[in-house]
Order: sequence, then structure tokens, then C-alpha cells
Amino acid sequence: MALPAPLHGVIPPVCTPLDRHGEVDTASLTRLVRHLLDGGVHGLFALGSTSEVAYLTDAQRGIALETVRTAAAGRVPVLAGVIDTTTPRVLDHARRAADLGADALVATAPFYTRTHPREIAAHFRHLRAAVDLPLVAYDIPLAVHTKLAPELVRELAEDGTLAGLKDSSGDDGALRRLLTALGGRTGRHRGPAPGFAVLTGSELTVDAALLAGADGVVPGLGNVDPAAYVRLYDAARAGHWERAAAEQERLVTLFSMVDAGPESEMSRSSSALGAFKAALRLLGVTQRGSTAFPQRPLSEEAVAEVARHLRTAGLLPAQQD
Amino acid sequence: MALPAPLHGVIPPVCTPLDRHGEVDTASLTRLVRHLLDGGVHGLFALGSTSEVAYLTDAQRGIALETVRTAAAGRVPVLAGVIDTTTPRVLDHARRAADLGADALVATAPFYTRTHPREIAAHFRHLRAAVDLPLVAYDIPLAVHTKLAPELVRELAEDGTLAGLKDSSGDDGALRRLLTALGGRTGRHRGPAPGFAVLTGSELTVDAALLAGADGVVPGLGNVDPAAYVRLYDAARAGHWERAAAEQERLVTLFSMVDAGPESEMSRSSSALGAFKAALRLLGVTQRGSTAFPQRPLSEEAVAEVARHLRTAGLLPAQQD
Amino acid sequence: MALPAPLHGVIPPVCTPLDRHGEVDTASLTRLVRHLLDGGVHGLFALGSTSEVAYLTDAQRGIALETVRTAAAGRVPVLAGVIDTTTPRVLDHARRAADLGADALVATAPFYTRTHPREIAAHFRHLRAAVDLPLVAYDIPLAVHTKLAPELVRELAEDGTLAGLKDSSGDDGALRRLLTALGGRTGRHRGPAPGFAVLTGSELTVDAALLAGADGVVPGLGNVDPAAYVRLYDAARAGHWERAAAEQERLVTLFSMVDAGPESEMSRSSSALGAFKAALRLLGVTQRGSTAFPQRPLSEEAVAEVARHLRTAGLLPAQQD
Amino acid sequence: MALPAPLHGVIPPVCTPLDRHGEVDTASLTRLVRHLLDGGVHGLFALGSTSEVAYLTDAQRGIALETVRTAAAGRVPVLAGVIDTTTPRVLDHARRAADLGADALVATAPFYTRTHPREIAAHFRHLRAAVDLPLVAYDIPLAVHTKLAPELVRELAEDGTLAGLKDSSGDDGALRRLLTALGGRTGRHRGPAPGFAVLTGSELTVDAALLAGADGVVPGLGNVDPAAYVRLYDAARAGHWERAAAEQERLVTLFSMVDAGPESEMSRSSSALGAFKAALRLLGVTQRGSTAFPQRPLSEEAVAEVARHLRTAGLLPAQQD
Repeated sequence: MALPAPLHGVIPPVCTPLDRHGEVDTASLTRLVRHLLDGGVHGLFALGSTSEVAYLTDAQRGIALETVRTAAAGRVPVLAGVIDTTTPRVLDHARRAADLGADALVATAPFYTRTHPREIAAHFRHLRAAVDLPLVAYDIPLAVHTKLAPELVRELAEDGTLAGLKDSSGDDGALRRLLTALGGRTGRHRGPAPGFAVLTGSELTVDAALLAGADGVVPGLGNVDPAAYVRLYDAARAGHWERAAAEQERLVTLFSMVDAGPESEMSRSSSALGAFKAALRLLGVTQRGSTAFPQRPLSEEAVAEVARHLRTAGLLPAQQD
Repeated sequence: MALPAPLHGVIPPVCTPLDRHGEVDTASLTRLVRHLLDGGVHGLFALGSTSEVAYLTDAQRGIALETVRTAAAGRVPVLAGVIDTTTPRVLDHARRAADLGADALVATAPFYTRTHPREIAAHFRHLRAAVDLPLVAYDIPLAVHTKLAPELVRELAEDGTLAGLKDSSGDDGALRRLLTALGGRTGRHRGPAPGFAVLTGSELTVDAALLAGADGVVPGLGNVDPAAYVRLYDAARAGHWERAAAEQERLVTLFSMVDAGPESEMSRSSSALGAFKAALRLLGVTQRGSTAFPQRPLSEEAVAEVARHLRTAGLLPAQQD
Repeated sequence: MALPAPLHGVIPPVCTPLDRHGEVDTASLTRLVRHLLDGGVHGLFALGSTSEVAYLTDAQRGIALETVRTAAAGRVPVLAGVIDTTTPRVLDHARRAADLGADALVATAPFYTRTHPREIAAHFRHLRAAVDLPLVAYDIPLAVHTKLAPELVRELAEDGTLAGLKDSSGDDGALRRLLTALGGRTGRHRGPAPGFAVLTGSELTVDAALLAGADGVVPGLGNVDPAAYVRLYDAARAGHWERAAAEQERLVTLFSMVDAGPESEMSRSSSALGAFKAALRLLGVTQRGSTAFPQRPLSEEAVAEVARHLRTAGLLPAQQD
Repeated sequence: MALPAPLHGVIPPVCTPLDRHGEVDTASLTRLVRHLLDGGVHGLFALGSTSEVAYLTDAQRGIALETVRTAAAGRVPVLAGVIDTTTPRVLDHARRAADLGADALVATAPFYTRTHPREIAAHFRHLRAAVDLPLVAYDIPLAVHTKLAPELVRELAEDGTLAGLKDSSGDDGALRRLLTALGGRTGRHRGPAPGFAVLTGSELTVDAALLAGADGVVPGLGNVDPAAYVRLYDAARAGHWERAAAEQERLVTLFSMVDAGPESEMSRSSSALGAFKAALRLLGVTQRGSTAFPQRPLSEEAVAEVARHLRTAGLLPAQQD
């Protein structure tokens, strides 16, 4: 399907449920997509960081993307992460994603190797030229250890290389500078880069990003409570900023589940992914809550902590005892 | 004077004008304070990073603080930065600041040495016990290379060690988590830490911070256009979020002056400080725009670029030629 | 072939020559392997960082490894890098490498995702259990942004998970602590971890590493002048430390070729790889000196600078003009 | 006294013993200096990082320096650290150090503020011009978060600004490149920068640094066992490299005391400083082993661990039980 221009709204990075053998649980993934569509989301981002793309083999990536696309059934666009170290490897993923019917591609700067702004520009331009799908740049310095410079994003937006930016840098000041440079909150959409979409991956400051002129959000926590992010988005679109902020605050509280797994036992990303996946199991969306190897599983106590957060948020019934 | 509880509003980190010998230009500094008070600011932060505190000798720090306090004349509270590597050295500054009549102290985590959360907690507790002034924690990882953990700040807020936080971490997600943990936008002020003030130092996302429940802002750019930050603050207080966002956007555009000095020639902090100080000279507030040694001066072209930004913002009359 | 225990000597990370289409130039790669074997190297490391493994598709990785193994013809062991983000993806590479006849595998800690010591330990243990080849840990924080803790390496050495360590961390102090903990320069080989090999990737301090008890070196510059690294190694083995240091010093001078490409134009890794590959072309070993996309090519001036370094080192005849 | 040219040998950064009130224990410091002189050291570095300079008030810095200088009694040169954020503040320390009879100054790049190579160069040139004492650059990125570029050090060495470099960067490859550029192990001393001294602060790889052509070492652990570092140095000077390496290996084992304090309780620098100071007390050199506030003290178990290391090294008699 053609992307809306600009791409906008709530576009969760879809978790990848796994079975007991560590393979993609397609039935659970299909249910998860329905859960998200029922929540009113505007798009789906398969094979992102929250999808544990870094832990999926090429075969598993294909299965996950195909499952999401099939379950989406053309109701919303499906973006596909094409995450790998450099252009030649990313291209292999991009061609597979195109074959599987992705509506847009999401690519990071090169990683593992050191890189350079001129190399990053060439990387995105080559991807765009080689595969005929809209291309979204994924700014995620925590993973790739390079921040996409606002000037570079702007240049690639204005020359038509990029259809959008997913900003997971956490640098809301730089995001504001980019939004302002691209025409600001009003005089859009987007002055010098028509149709360019700015999506924030900072799920704790979505009200702020929308107030600043962002078009949408890619929230990992949106797997757990998609309807709340849609309410937040709708409130913002209607100019009800305090209602949006109140929704955001509720989600910030819910987000605390990411600390369930102790730092002495696992990485912060494993704790967060484990919490989201445990929540999906507790909500009955998926069959299991396990994360991919070599991440460590949440303990029973940690899962109980996740459940407590779901009850506090009203997503599970209050416990009786 | 007693601090308002909580401390709130626009509290610029006051630039330190220098004379041709690199000494504090007290006449210019006095005029700058008046410029800020005329703009309607709610407090003054002397001896912060934007004050070039790291470049001022102890004697110069004393002169700068005394000048600011005298010029403020009790109209607004004066916060004093007590920036040094560890507790014993910070204490020396704190006692001098108390003697000079500061209304509150602003201290960072230890730096130069490596540190630890338990050492940081002891540091703030000892400062608070030793000098009888409200203490604000200054979270500025770009300078001290340690981020104050939200749990630590919360603990020190709740036990009364800290009267507030100045958050210059740029991590608006963490700030949101702290604000939510401390009672959120409503149920304040501040549930478990009554009177605790949260001030953002992120001058490009002030509307967002206020929407999230922050009490005020410490904007470097507020030296140049204090009235605009006051308008932004007032709009937010009145619930006019889109007006606040429009003011913010104008300030984001004005802020671009910080790139006037080229990266090949000077540090990013020198370029920003040079731009603010050049602007103050161009506005007729200070006599000179020079930064402290060993920072490199802005070129004539860079100063012309600053002037262009001032004209675009309507702070200088449009040029005729 | 069975690995010597411990693996030792000069084991260059073999560059991957490319043709004009960016495909592996197998004829040039075969000549490069002969050049290395003629230089007296003790092993070959295919698909390492210097091999531009991060830029090679899976198909290209297979061709490169097969070419190296065939050209090596069993004369020295061939180690294969299995570089990917996490265990499941690394396993795919490991199985292909085993099928292609690699004599050992070289794997990093997980990257792109954040990780944790316990996850890293599980990662290496699972790789070792799943593929029956000796496993070498590759400590390269510049690429993966995690340093392998000496205690962890020691634990995995002592329990037989690891056959060796390739230390490209640049942290020679930590390496010394590990060597000392594993029995030191004498009481080897290797006290609690019999046969464990410590290889340094720090090509500028090989004399130091050998003096400290390391078993060998994996020098990128060894592509250009393998015989010199063999001389260095032999001198050290014979206890002629000042001769070793003199060889090292000559190689440090030659290494300066890595700065040929200007920082304003390309990443530091692209400049280094470009210099090594330009040198191989100038020496007549390979047909072309190009690096993989999206790296930028060296300019003619930069190549001339590389040539100058080769002449100074006596690897090319002095120029006449 | 005039510095030897080049400055060379073992120059420990002298610990600063504290009394129960946290003040400089001058009697203990005097004994420590004698302990070091008895060990045969070639110089003393007061007010370095290991001296806890970042924790000492200006008054305490003066007392410590004066005590060291008096106790040294002209037998060896006394270098004084002048550690502060920027040039104007460093100058204040430099003038005091000159007044107190320091034989040379040791200064870092600016810190707290961001800086730039051109600002760093101006910083060192101004210090050298303003105070008539030999100036040593202190490269300690762990503390100041800037690495001194080898080209910059070389430029400042060749133009006479710097009398030497204390390299605590841990980057032995960069050090080797600098040494090679300055004439190498032989053709010294120092080709283009006559008399320039290269001192390593990497106390675990001193044999390597001396083999590479360094002139000396500034070892924190040298407080505990100065004689061993002098033996290492003498063996290296005599060309007995394996004897030097054996001494180094023994010191690497002794160095493990720095891990006595657990990471969950204190910073790594506090653990190391606490171990060195505990060792000095256990050896009877100083009266107390306490570190400066807000560092946390070693537990009794940690001190027992330090004692165990001293016994293993033969510095304390074996325990009888």
C-alpha cells in the first residue's frame, strides 16, 4: 500500500513472540498484530530493535515480517527494519523485505565499523536508489554509536532520499532543531521536504514531540497498551495538550515495568524487552513471554512486578487476596 | 531572601562580561542583571556553566557573585554555582557564596575523579549539612561525565537534602520519570518531597518540560532574550500550550546562533558562549563580547552571523543596505 | 587441521580484495594469501574487521573464506570470523564456516543490542557447544562497544569454552593482568587454562605483548609487510628484545600510512583499510585497492602518500626523479 | 633544583596521608617521602591524581606540596600538579607552586568545559609563558575526557612549550607512535625536541614503555613498593628485559589490591586509592589509611585483602596461624 504522506500516528515496533524452541511463534504474533490494530494504531514497524531484530536469523526475520504483513492485511502500512552493519548487507535485507511486501524500509547508519557523515549519506542514497520503497532513517545511537546529525537528515529529507526519520536518540533538543528547520509546527508539511515524516521513538515524551510538530511515535510500550498511545495521539491532534500529558504520565508510570529485571543479572534492554513480552503473555496476547537467546529470562518475582504494573494501570483486574 | 517554594520560573545562568584584561566587567554585569530583571525573570543563577565559572578564578567568582547580588537588590533570588571537583573544594566555594549573600547553592556531582552513587549522595548530604542554604543539584553529564540517577535525586529530594534539581542532562525521558515519581503534573507540590523544584536546563524544550510538570527553566539563551522565555513560561502557566510552543520555536531559531563559530576552530561551548556574549554586546547590554581564555574569539563573520540572528528575531532593527 | 596448542605466531587478518563491481576478487585474494605465506606467517584470520567483514554479504563471506582456505592449502590454520549481532545470527555464520573448513572460529560479544557479562558468557558457551571448532574470543570494544572483562575471559578459558583471545581492545594493562592471572610469562602454558592462546591485535606494541607473554599477533599491517612481523616475532622468541623493538619501531613508522585519508573525508577505519589495500596494489599483490561501499576511496594524493611510506620502508624501490 | 634533561626514572605520584579530621598528616607524608627516597626513586610528583589532588582544598594543596618539598630536601626534583578546570584557575595554582619551590609543573587539558585542540595548545603555551618552570603535560582522559593528540604533544615538545609528557591515557599504541615520531628508541634524545621526557603513568606496562623508549614512569603503586619499580627501571636500563618483565609481573600481581573495595560500594578510583593508602598504613609508613571525603572507606575485609597481597609480595611477613 502507498504510505500516507506524511507517515503519522502510532506505529509500534512489533515484538516478536517466540516459542519454546526460540522460533517465531506466528500464531502469537498474529494475535499481537490484531491486539495492536484493535488498539487503533496507524502503522506497524516489524523487525525493529524492540522486535529483537538483532537476535533473529535471516529466516526468522522473513517469517516475522511475513506474519506481520499478512496479519495487517493492508489495514495499515507495515514498515520493515533492515538492520545490519553496512550497505551491502542491508541491501540483502531490503530486497527480501520488498519481496515480502513491506511498505517502507527503516535503516540505521552503518555500525560495527566506524563511519563518517559522508559515508552515511552515501549509504542512505544507495539504499534508496537500489530498492524502490520509501526509506526511513533510524537514529539510534545507543545501538549504532553514531548520532545522525540534524543537518544530514535535513539534506537527505530535502533531496528526497528519506521519507522520514525515526528518532530514538533521546536528544529532544536536536529533534526540536530539526523540526524547526523543516518548517516548524505550522507552515508544514514540511516546507523544504514535502511529506517528510518525523517519528519519535522516545515513548516517555510523546506529548512533547507532538507539541513540537512530530508526526507520530514508535513506542515499544505501545505493544502493551496501544490504545493509550492512540488516545495520547488523538488528544494532541485535537489540541487537548493537558489530556495528552495526563495520558503520557500514565504511560510513564506503566513504563517502570522495564526495571523489573535486576541490573546485576541482565542488560537494560533485556529487562525492558522481557517486561514487554511478559506483559503480553499476562494480557493473554501471546503464549509465552520469553526473550531471545542469550538474553536472560525474567525471574518469577520480576514477572510478578510486571503484573503489578499492569494492575495499577488497569490493564489487568485488581488482585483479590 | 527566602526562596519561593518551589523555586520556579525563568532563572537565567548569568553570563559574566569580561573587560580587555579578562577581568569581570562589573558595570556590564550590572547592566546585564538589569536587562534580565527588565525581562521579568524570576531568579538569577550566578556562577553557572554559562557564566564561564570554570574559567573564573576564586577572586573573579567572588566579584561576579557580589555584583549579581547587589544588582538584583533583593528583587529575585540569586543562586550561586559552587562548581569544583569534590566536596572539600566545593565547601570552600559554598562558604564564600554564603558570606556573599547567595540565596541558594547549586552543586554538581564530583568530577575529574571517578565517583559512585553512594559517594554522590554523601557529597550532597555533607554540603547541605555544612552550609545553611537551600541546595540545588546540577545534573550536567556533559561537564562532569556522570548522570544523576533519578532514584538518587528522588531520595535526596524526599529526605530534604535537595531543594531542587537543575537538569541539564538533555535526557527528557529520565526527567519525565522523575517528575512522575514525584507526584506528576497535578497531585503536587511535590507529594513526597514538598517544595522540591525541578528546573530544566534544556532551553530548546522548555514548553515540553513545563507541560510535564517542571517548575522552571535555566536558559543560557535567556541572557539574550529573557522576555521571550518569560512569555513562554507565562503562556504555559496559563495553559496556552500552542502559544508556548510557538514562543519556543522562535527561540529554537534564535538559538542557532550557537553554531556561529566553526568546529574546526573552537569547542562547541566556546562557540555558544561566544555567540551569547556577542549578542549581548550587539544589543548594547555589555561593552565587550569576549569569552575567557583559552577560548578562541568569534571571528567578524561569526559576529555578523549572530547579528543576523538577532535581526531575524526582531531583537535588532532590520539592516538597511 | 588441528590447531597448534596454543595457537601462536603471526596470524594476519586477511584483507579482502574487491573487483570493480565490489565483488570478492578471488585471484587477488589467492595472491595475497601466497604473499602472506611467503612472509612466513603462522596462521590466517579470514573475515575479521580488517577483512571488511562488516561490509561483506553472506555470499561474499563464503567466497572469501573458501578462497583463503583453498589458497592456504593446509599449510597454516585458517581462523574464520563469525561476526554478527547475537548468538542466533553468529551460529548461522559459524555453521557455514565449519562447512567451509575453517580450523577455528573468532566471535565477538553481542553488539547493536546492549548486553551483560552473563549474556556474553552464555553466548560463548552456546557457540562452543553448538559447533565443534575451537573458539577464539575477539575483544574489540571500538566495534562492539563492550570490553570483555579479564575475569570473564579467564573463566571461559579455564572451563575450556575458549581456545584463545584476540585482544584488540588496546588496553595493554588489562591484557597484562590477564596474562599474569593465567600463569604469567613463565609457569605456562597456561597454568589453569592449558593451551589457551593470547593474541594481541595491537599491531604497534607487539614487542611489548610478547615480552608480557602473549603467544602471537593479528596485525592488519601484516598484510603489507608480513615478513617484518615474522622477524619481530622470531626476535622476541629468541629473547632479542631490542632487535624486536627495532622491528616494531620500523613498523610503527610504516603504520603511519593509515592517516593518508583526511578526517574531513572518511572514517579512520576507511582510511586505514584504504591505505592497506592501496599498499597491496602498489606492491603488485592485488589488482585493485578499493574498499567496500559506502567507504570513500583514497584520493590520488593519499595513494601517493602510501607509496611514499612503502619506499621509506624499503618495500618499494626509491623513486627516481 | 634544575631538572635533569630529560627527566627520567621512577617518579611516584605521592599519596597524601590524612589525619582523623581529613587534614594533611604532615608527619606521615614526611615518612612517606623518606620511604620513597629510600626506595631509590628519581623524583616525586606531588598533587597528582593519586595524591587525591581533586579532593584537597587550596590550603591543603599548599601544605602537601611544602611538606613533600621539605622532605625531599633537594635530593630529587619535585613536580607539582596544578590541576584545575582552565588556564586562569591553573595559573593560580602554578604561581603558588612556584612560590613553594616546585621544580616543575604538571598540567592537564582544560576540563569540565568542553575544549578544542587549539584551545589546549593556547592553554599550555600561556602557562609556560606565565610561570618560569618546566611544564609537563598530563594526558589523563579518564579524568579530563580529552585525549591529548600525539601531533599536538609533538608540536608543543618541539617548540619548547613542554618539557615532558606524563601519559596516563593507557593508549600504548599512541604512545609508541609519539616516541617513534620523536626520534625513537635510539637517535635520541629527542631529535626534534631535545631533552623532552616521556613518562608513562601505565604502571602495569612499564617494561614495555621503557623498551619503546620512554624515559620513566609515574606509578601509583610505587608508593607501596618503590624499590621494585626502581629495580624494574634499572633492569631495563641495563638491557635485562626479561628481568624487567619479571619485576613488572610481580608488580601486576601486587596491583590486584586495587580491587579490594567492591564495585557495589565505591568508585574504582576510591578502591585503588584506598588500597594504596591501606598498604602504606599496614607497612607502618603512615598512621592512617583513610581516603578523602566523600570517598568511602575500605571495609575490614578489604584491608585484610590488601594485607594478603602485601604478604604474597613479601612486603609483610607471612602470617602465622
